[in-house]
Amino acid sequence: MAIVIFSGGANEPLAVAVAAQVGVALGRRVIARFPDSELHVQIEDSVRGRDVYLIQPTSPPADAHLMELLFLADACHRAGASRVTAIVPYFGYARQDRRARGREPVGARVISDLFAAAHICRVVAVDLHTPELEGFMSIPLEHLTAVPILVGALTPLLPEDCVIVSPDLGGVKLAQRYATALRKPLAIVYKERLSGREVEVRGIVGDVAGRVPVIVDDMVSTAGTVSAAIGALVQACCIPQPLVVATHGLLVGEAVERLSGVPVRRLVFSDTVASANHPSLPLEAVSIAPLLADAIKRLHSERSLDDLIVHH
Amino acid sequence: MAIVIFSGGANEPLAVAVAAQVGVALGRRVIARFPDSELHVQIEDSVRGRDVYLIQPTSPPADAHLMELLFLADACHRAGASRVTAIVPYFGYARQDRRARGREPVGARVISDLFAAAHICRVVAVDLHTPELEGFMSIPLEHLTAVPILVGALTPLLPEDCVIVSPDLGGVKLAQRYATALRKPLAIVYKERLSGREVEVRGIVGDVAGRVPVIVDDMVSTAGTVSAAIGALVQACCIPQPLVVATHGLLVGEAVERLSGVPVRRLVFSDTVASANHPSLPLEAVSIAPLLADAIKRLHSERSLDDLIVHH
Amino acid sequence: MAIVIFSGGANEPLAVAVAAQVGVALGRRVIARFPDSELHVQIEDSVRGRDVYLIQPTSPPADAHLMELLFLADACHRAGASRVTAIVPYFGYARQDRRARGREPVGARVISDLFAAAHICRVVAVDLHTPELEGFMSIPLEHLTAVPILVGALTPLLPEDCVIVSPDLGGVKLAQRYATALRKPLAIVYKERLSGREVEVRGIVGDVAGRVPVIVDDMVSTAGTVSAAIGALVQACCIPQPLVVATHGLLVGEAVERLSGVPVRRLVFSDTVASANHPSLPLEAVSIAPLLADAIKRLHSERSLDDLIVHH
Amino acid sequence: MAIVIFSGGANEPLAVAVAAQVGVALGRRVIARFPDSELHVQIEDSVRGRDVYLIQPTSPPADAHLMELLFLADACHRAGASRVTAIVPYFGYARQDRRARGREPVGARVISDLFAAAHICRVVAVDLHTPELEGFMSIPLEHLTAVPILVGALTPLLPEDCVIVSPDLGGVKLAQRYATALRKPLAIVYKERLSGREVEVRGIVGDVAGRVPVIVDDMVSTAGTVSAAIGALVQACCIPQPLVVATHGLLVGEAVERLSGVPVRRLVFSDTVASANHPSLPLEAVSIAPLLADAIKRLHSERSLDDLIVHH
Amino acid sequence: MAIVIFSGGANEPLAVAVAAQVGVALGRRVIARFPDSELHVQIEDSVRGRDVYLIQPTSPPADAHLMELLFLADACHRAGASRVTAIVPYFGYARQDRRARGREPVGARVISDLFAAAHICRVVAVDLHTPELEGFMSIPLEHLTAVPILVGALTPLLPEDCVIVSPDLGGVKLAQRYATALRKPLAIVYKERLSGREVEVRGIVGDVAGRVPVIVDDMVSTAGTVSAAIGALVQACCIPQPLVVATHGLLVGEAVERLSGVPVRRLVFSDTVASANHPSLPLEAVSIAPLLADAIKRLHSERSLDDLIVHH
Amino acid sequence: MAIVIFSGGANEPLAVAVAAQVGVALGRRVIARFPDSELHVQIEDSVRGRDVYLIQPTSPPADAHLMELLFLADACHRAGASRVTAIVPYFGYARQDRRARGREPVGARVISDLFAAAHICRVVAVDLHTPELEGFMSIPLEHLTAVPILVGALTPLLPEDCVIVSPDLGGVKLAQRYATALRKPLAIVYKERLSGREVEVRGIVGDVAGRVPVIVDDMVSTAGTVSAAIGALVQACCIPQPLVVATHGLLVGEAVERLSGVPVRRLVFSDTVASANHPSLPLEAVSIAPLLADAIKRLHSERSLDDLIVHH
Repeated sequence: MAIVIFSGGANEPLAVAVAAQVGVALGRRVIARFPDSELHVQIEDSVRGRDVYLIQPTSPPADAHLMELLFLADACHRAGASRVTAIVPYFGYARQDRRARGREPVGARVISDLFAAAHICRVVAVDLHTPELEGFMSIPLEHLTAVPILVGALTPLLPEDCVIVSPDLGGVKLAQRYATALRKPLAIVYKERLSGREVEVRGIVGDVAGRVPVIVDDMVSTAGTVSAAIGALVQACCIPQPLVVATHGLLVGEAVERLSGVPVRRLVFSDTVASANHPSLPLEAVSIAPLLADAIKRLHSERSLDDLIVHH
Repeated sequence: MAIVIFSGGANEPLAVAVAAQVGVALGRRVIARFPDSELHVQIEDSVRGRDVYLIQPTSPPADAHLMELLFLADACHRAGASRVTAIVPYFGYARQDRRARGREPVGARVISDLFAAAHICRVVAVDLHTPELEGFMSIPLEHLTAVPILVGALTPLLPEDCVIVSPDLGGVKLAQRYATALRKPLAIVYKERLSGREVEVRGIVGDVAGRVPVIVDDMVSTAGTVSAAIGALVQACCIPQPLVVATHGLLVGEAVERLSGVPVRRLVFSDTVASANHPSLPLEAVSIAPLLADAIKRLHSERSLDDLIVHH
Repeated sequence: MAIVIFSGGANEPLAVAVAAQVGVALGRRVIARFPDSELHVQIEDSVRGRDVYLIQPTSPPADAHLMELLFLADACHRAGASRVTAIVPYFGYARQDRRARGREPVGARVISDLFAAAHICRVVAVDLHTPELEGFMSIPLEHLTAVPILVGALTPLLPEDCVIVSPDLGGVKLAQRYATALRKPLAIVYKERLSGREVEVRGIVGDVAGRVPVIVDDMVSTAGTVSAAIGALVQACCIPQPLVVATHGLLVGEAVERLSGVPVRRLVFSDTVASANHPSLPLEAVSIAPLLADAIKRLHSERSLDDLIVHH
Repeated sequence: MAIVIFSGGANEPLAVAVAAQVGVALGRRVIARFPDSELHVQIEDSVRGRDVYLIQPTSPPADAHLMELLFLADACHRAGASRVTAIVPYFGYARQDRRARGREPVGARVISDLFAAAHICRVVAVDLHTPELEGFMSIPLEHLTAVPILVGALTPLLPEDCVIVSPDLGGVKLAQRYATALRKPLAIVYKERLSGREVEVRGIVGDVAGRVPVIVDDMVSTAGTVSAAIGALVQACCIPQPLVVATHGLLVGEAVERLSGVPVRRLVFSDTVASANHPSLPLEAVSIAPLLADAIKRLHSERSLDDLIVHH
Repeated sequence: MAIVIFSGGANEPLAVAVAAQVGVALGRRVIARFPDSELHVQIEDSVRGRDVYLIQPTSPPADAHLMELLFLADACHRAGASRVTAIVPYFGYARQDRRARGREPVGARVISDLFAAAHICRVVAVDLHTPELEGFMSIPLEHLTAVPILVGALTPLLPEDCVIVSPDLGGVKLAQRYATALRKPLAIVYKERLSGREVEVRGIVGDVAGRVPVIVDDMVSTAGTVSAAIGALVQACCIPQPLVVATHGLLVGEAVERLSGVPVRRLVFSDTVASANHPSLPLEAVSIAPLLADAIKRLHSERSLDDLIVHH
Repeated sequence: MAIVIFSGGANEPLAVAVAAQVGVALGRRVIARFPDSELHVQIEDSVRGRDVYLIQPTSPPADAHLMELLFLADACHRAGASRVTAIVPYFGYARQDRRARGREPVGARVISDLFAAAHICRVVAVDLHTPELEGFMSIPLEHLTAVPILVGALTPLLPEDCVIVSPDLGGVKLAQRYATALRKPLAIVYKERLSGREVEVRGIVGDVAGRVPVIVDDMVSTAGTVSAAIGALVQACCIPQPLVVATHGLLVGEAVERLSGVPVRRLVFSDTVASANHPSLPLEAVSIAPLLADAIKRLHSERSLDDLIVHH
């Protein structure tokens, strides 16, 4: 059973890098839009009896990227693929994991059901915002983590006297994993979310004064949480110019403005999401292609993923 | 079991008109996008035990409008709705009804499965490009037709000496229904599709010379087929300034340019798709709100739809 | 994973020929009826871990042949077959692809669901009346075509001055495929269907006078369409004694009487359906066993079917 | 929610009687066959929002009658029926309840899955050969019994000195129910089944000498079991001219010959299966229409069926 | 559609109270065990067409109580219930919401799938440990909260100078809801979980010195977290004799010993779980019967649950 | 695809023996209970791509053992196992195969659905009380028999003048298989079941006087049936000290007391169920490990099980 890797349209550079490390050429496919916006997908290499991997984060525009993934999967299924694995380095809609205010959809479950409807057999995700998503799916979900790779990239950048900071309560477990790996102390900024998108910083647990904060989170989306945390940290007399580290650097909405306006030393993101060029930001991209390539090789040869997976 | 009608974001004016004719206020809901493009949906009126109708054509942008429909349906399901009926006046992806060139998805089936995954119980569609779509769904699909409404709107506009024209072979059955209803002769332009989007007109069956052609089709998308048909008809000595009639006036891509460049007397479309303002075009919109309102009232009170439905 | 081929009771000669070309003996099975008409099926060779192919057209009596296929598939599933592929050279009920007159079943969807209920993993069909059937199934359907084989058989039989004729509008695409392959001109007889089974010929597009017509269709069932077309062609001064070509030669109802009464030069059918002996007809059977054997060999060894498949 | 009852083609007289007792006219439907043997079904009355009951035993020809039922159910589902209940007075394939000889299908499970695939919501059956069939279905199965009706018909026919006889071990529980209701002694003929259809009587448990035997069974199919039992009983010095009672009088194969050749006093069957006229047999038909009508009325008005149901 | 309420065997006193407040008698049913430990369930009242509510927390022994619920649901389904709602006041296995250490089951998803397999239509739960469980289910889950009831019971017990304490980071959101409702300050004990069941308290956020701590949590299981938190609070100079409040008072393992050994003023639990008598503990039970009765009445009459539901 | 065998907690000695005969070490796993009785399962060896066999009879406590099996299966599925086969030597709940008294669950179907919900692909069972269970499952069920093994163990123990006895009518087919294999005559004790657990012996078919009875049954549960049969046999002047043979020696309830009080020569059971030590009983355990090991080896290497399977 030979391996074939296809890229959706969301992050081709990552897919190219992954395929190169797996040692195969990316499968050829057409992803196009008809003038009426409808998606057209065509697989150009035979996938019959193949072990197919589709690499597609559901980064913005989320719906279009999701639909590409579903159409690619259906095309592979109908063309006789033995097994279709969706590699979704950034899994959107993961925050819609319950009905927060009554009559909402459970978005993450809707998406999970769409995966199954499109004949996807298995999902590989990286640093999910909600690890419980695993239970939303009937098919197996392998939950990889980019933390070791980001830790490796951080190590040479760290000043001696730094502190790992979780910018909110929800991120404490992730921050602890960084703190343990880097052997640094931990601090927590806890915030009160006042309304949908604005935050109000409330306090800091742990000693940050005189230290360089290393703010860690699973994703930086509009950078609201991070910039508010930086404000609080500066007020608490940390050494300004913090580092910011996250698996997913979405940088949407006012993110670039916000981050340009605060004294960030370095922004370290993985490449789960295709990044635009932001010359005003001190970005450092760390590729997770080795992680994904390793996972694919192991999945293909049926070896354990145990040490690539998030343990809680 | 009370009735509640919600509008997706694709065609609110139509939904407003339908609700008014049904005699209820549109249900309140929030449809918004987070900065990272993810959809946020919230139902603001109780739907518990209600008979819910969601009005949403999957017009461009197709994926976003589809996702809105799925999220609305899931929200209604989880909030205890008794029954969720999707009213999809224009059903996108209906042309992706088979694998035309080998390793493609069967897009219309993928969409059909997504409907079921989102707990939709029943679909109402209007003048589907592929009537076989009914068989793609496990849930009942009611296939309404706007032809009688369009015929009603056409009647006062028709010159005595006109001919109903199908602009290609696939549309002959639809054209016959117009011809019968209007008691006019029928002609067929048959074309050879050379490549994806360009067409080459080949010949005309029927007598068009000296008559005003009334070109009828299920949808006018990029207007390529229609403008080519007009070219052939003019060459065949019809009276220039044809009428063009279709259920779905998508007018995407170069449609406006193409139609502005040919001598069209009138473009008669229903309002299944929310229309932009095109001052350069002699557009006439005919509302299908009465049709949809009638269907909803019958479905709600469990009366037969027989005379609203396409018979083949 | 070894291959096993079983024949249902509908067309054993074809199955024998296919197995011979694949290079295996037909698997042994019992298909019998109890005195109360109930079907009894038993598989006599082990199928555990095997790649099983069941060859069974759903030719008349359609229900009985369908049920044989379902029982064979269930027996193979329960006996541990790795994969059950149904080879359905003639797929009945394909014309019941929508609700034509209101409260009908969508027969083709019912059949499609039965296939899945019986644990069939994949279907192979030949020249479907409705290619959209692919979307009726959740499992992959491989839509093969017998046209190249029939073209090969036709070539030596063709007079120089002939014309490919589609006997109705629905068959134009198929006729074009013959015309292109044989490099012959194309004509269309278009008919108006008056009532269920009687037809009224209306006109002819294309030049047939003085030519030998080669009428092509996907199937010849009661021969009503074909014999009406011959009447029209003769009236249009073609050279009498046309050829008739079709993938599926069902010849039911009054077919033999009708075809005996018109001046047919040759009737060329494939052997998708087991044929009775009709000495009064100039039948020529062309076997699709090589096509099916090739498809099975490729499916078994996971090679592409691309060039055996209908492209639209 | 109004009630509608349709009859399949297998037993219209029974359906007419049931509808009359329920107090409604039978719904109008077309059941026809195309010349190629394919089934054509059409519902002519609106079923939208209706509580639909389909009456169809799967008596010979079993496959055709089964398919009629499935197509009727699908048509009702797609036409908007609220609930489709299949009344299957005689449930064929009930004896194929396990794999008896290795690689067989479990026919009764296949049939059960087809019911669900056709959107049937509930099944009503009468005196099933295998009561475990209930567990084959995910939908509820109401297992009614005709025994009280048959007991009522038997009572005036019984000589004082009679004995209830089960013609084989499998029927003992049923015979006990008759014996208890009629307050008569019980005897058992136990047989050794030598090959598929022939039987060899072995012995008799219980006192039959000088008594009139009343042989009871769930069905009389080829009458092999019954005629062998009569032979054994006569040999055991019972009073000749036994009575034979069964819910389902299929009388297929050599049944009429066999029963004409033995001294049967009376054959009492219910009308679950439409009976042919057999002047040579002393047949007495007892209608279960009151039972089915009662069940339908209770199901429709949501009242308990408890006293109509088989208790084991 | 009448209402019927049945109690499983896990908490009959609660079910009795709920039924009384709904104004109906509890439905009669048998729940027994055969000598081989197999469960035997029988419903003694007709449920045909009824709106059935099954009240059963999955408290210890969890498997046996779960199986009772599944068997009751299947019995109601097969007996013709219109709708089966499972009221699961305490939902066990909710903490097994992801694969924490590699090759584990996602227990909560397994349980969710079992619910669907047993034909349960809807679940009502109270103060779930993992609100994301909603996404594990395809059927609607109504997530009620006992917090207002517990707040009502707490109010008269509260000393003026008290502080709401979350005993770990995971419970902060719940603690905030209490703090807001009671208008009291908030503190957090954050712990490091060292091994499976032992905990090590690390620090306290917020001002507790000189105040009476009110420790709030969703459940008190072995009381390890709570007793460790009390230790830390006492060390931090709070006023000893804290109050402990939780929705679910499981009190398993060493819970009674632990709580007897610390200076607890009052233990306030709801009655989601049937409580044993612990004379050594200052227990105060607050009934959620009014909450469940209110929910059932609203669900039955199809009114909104909005103000009974957890909003995040 | 390598093989891995795990044992549930119900019968580890059997699993150890099976694994030894297959030639592999048992896979390592943790099965534990949290203090609140919730099950915790963890697989410690990689199962990715493996052919997994889980050995677990659902012997008492049935629910707990069943849940272990489901959790093990889910864990293997999510961890990437290729195929999960449940080896259930004793299948509990098999007697709940229909609704015997109205509003009961069909317990065996509930259990069957749970198997599928937990992603089990195939079930292997031994001497099922209800062979129809096969039809309750959509997945294949291999129904093995321990009769040849028990016959082998019996042969040296049999006195010359013995008779095989079925202790009730339901067991006659099983007894015939023993009688045929051992070439001994057959007798039947037939009983009338008066109430749930007490039995009343009624009569004996066949000649037992002066012979040693060998009572055979599928299982000995409370031994009520067996001890009553012994009473009847002794009364019928058999040679006291019968042998008792059964596949499943559950010995629950009063079984040990009952069997200690009757003159049993030997009790021969297989080890499908882990047995306690009963010094008062003349137990002889015969291991089915060779049978299960043989079945696993054949399933793994895709060879026929035909001669290991029950034929009816």
